[in-house]
Amino acid sequence: MPSTRRSRCSRTTTALSRGRTSLPYANFIGPYGGITAAQCLNAVLQHPQRLGDPVAFTVNFAAAVADGGFAIRARPARTNRSTQHWIIEMLQGEEVVATGTALTALRRPTWGGHELPMPEAPRPQDVARVTRRGVAWLERYEMRFLLGMIPRDWDGQGASDSLSRLWVRDDPPRPLDFASLAALCDVFFPRIWLRRARQTPLGTVSMTVYFHAGAAQLQAAGAGYLLAQARGQGFGSGYFDHTGQLWSEQGELLATTHQVMYYKE
Amino acid sequence: MPSTRRSRCSRTTTALSRGRTSLPYANFIGPYGGITAAQCLNAVLQHPQRLGDPVAFTVNFAAAVADGGFAIRARPARTNRSTQHWIIEMLQGEEVVATGTALTALRRPTWGGHELPMPEAPRPQDVARVTRRGVAWLERYEMRFLLGMIPRDWDGQGASDSLSRLWVRDDPPRPLDFASLAALCDVFFPRIWLRRARQTPLGTVSMTVYFHAGAAQLQAAGAGYLLAQARGQGFGSGYFDHTGQLWSEQGELLATTHQVMYYKE
Repeated sequence: MPSTRRSRCSRTTTALSRGRTSLPYANFIGPYGGITAAQCLNAVLQHPQRLGDPVAFTVNFAAAVADGGFAIRARPARTNRSTQHWIIEMLQGEEVVATGTALTALRRPTWGGHELPMPEAPRPQDVARVTRRGVAWLERYEMRFLLGMIPRDWDGQGASDSLSRLWVRDDPPRPLDFASLAALCDVFFPRIWLRRARQTPLGTVSMTVYFHAGAAQLQAAGAGYLLAQARGQGFGSGYFDHTGQLWSEQGELLATTHQVMYYKE
Repeated sequence: MPSTRRSRCSRTTTALSRGRTSLPYANFIGPYGGITAAQCLNAVLQHPQRLGDPVAFTVNFAAAVADGGFAIRARPARTNRSTQHWIIEMLQGEEVVATGTALTALRRPTWGGHELPMPEAPRPQDVARVTRRGVAWLERYEMRFLLGMIPRDWDGQGASDSLSRLWVRDDPPRPLDFASLAALCDVFFPRIWLRRARQTPLGTVSMTVYFHAGAAQLQAAGAGYLLAQARGQGFGSGYFDHTGQLWSEQGELLATTHQVMYYKE
């Protein structure tokens, strides 16, 4: 995952992170959205005034990110005793290419009980790896599909249901952290492909991630596989959304995510 | 619903909306979160430079909103040919009390096909109205519960499932618009009450709404009931989330929503 270099503007609360897109994460045009999301979150994670770990994170893809350099402005708009609210803007030149907000918090032990159990699934080792080529970022993830794989034939014979479920991890494997988990939340191919078995120009315009994992859960997940699933909800007038969940191999719910995509026709 | 008064700062792209909290929407402390969300969205809707209708909207509740006046700064961070990305801040004095982002867009007819059908339900008129008192905002919504009502006894005997489903509309009835739909997305009582049958201090910290309805669907929904449902996902270390959907009485999916709440113990 590409790193970002910080150039502080004195002691003000607004610092600028500088970074570059990374060709190993290239998509059809510009970088994979998940890596842009991770870089935006990373500007918060690396900010010297950050309080706690991420709980909620929304990123809006405002324009195509060009290959090359960028700056990210992450500003703590409000800092409370145990929570902090961030406003994020990614810039290329004078142009805003992404916006976002994040909530970080000092989390404390409480009652807990995730309501969504991990679906029953064969072990990752027992599921065939799907190798998809064409753009670089697909090779940055090892994907083993349980159901809802990309249509075999683009014949317009879509399904009524767009549920996908897969084992997935970084390739090369690396220990999970908040930034890589945010990137993994964008790993799902567009739900509309399953519904329509037809390709149309499209792109994610907004994604939200809720982190249910803290540092201990990330460490326990390590470099293992995650079970990831997503399912479409509403499709119409050029936009559709999906809702998704990611569990560790041990069955711990690590993150829930939702996103809305634009599509052309 | 309270209105906001605009005071433009010359011809810059940043305009300040001024408004006041509304006692008929009072919650235990300060206003109902849904009305704060609606006011933040309204600052975008009323902005003279707005392009199109809302598609995605995230609001973060950064601090308790005090009863009284506020200002909302809505700024179009990026304007494309048919989409626009907004950054929103609600201020009381010098303090930021809410942040948010919104995507507005000119939507065009495309293939469509919502994947989530409205659950089968008896007609609203055939379901008993539940009258909940205690805080004013509860009286601003007519609620008719189909399942997942607030626990009758706070005996600590919670359920394993937090699905709620209800018919709901504004009281007094009013034609649906984007702001009132955003407010309705926050109408669900905390899912943790169903899981635990135990009260604990809590509050919404972030909510996202995806609008599947355009102006025509809003008009068709009119002042009718909406079928609203929500279900919890992850609960732990002081935060839980839910995912929800709202359909018109005619069965049209109008919005999907997700939120994360803080809870104390």
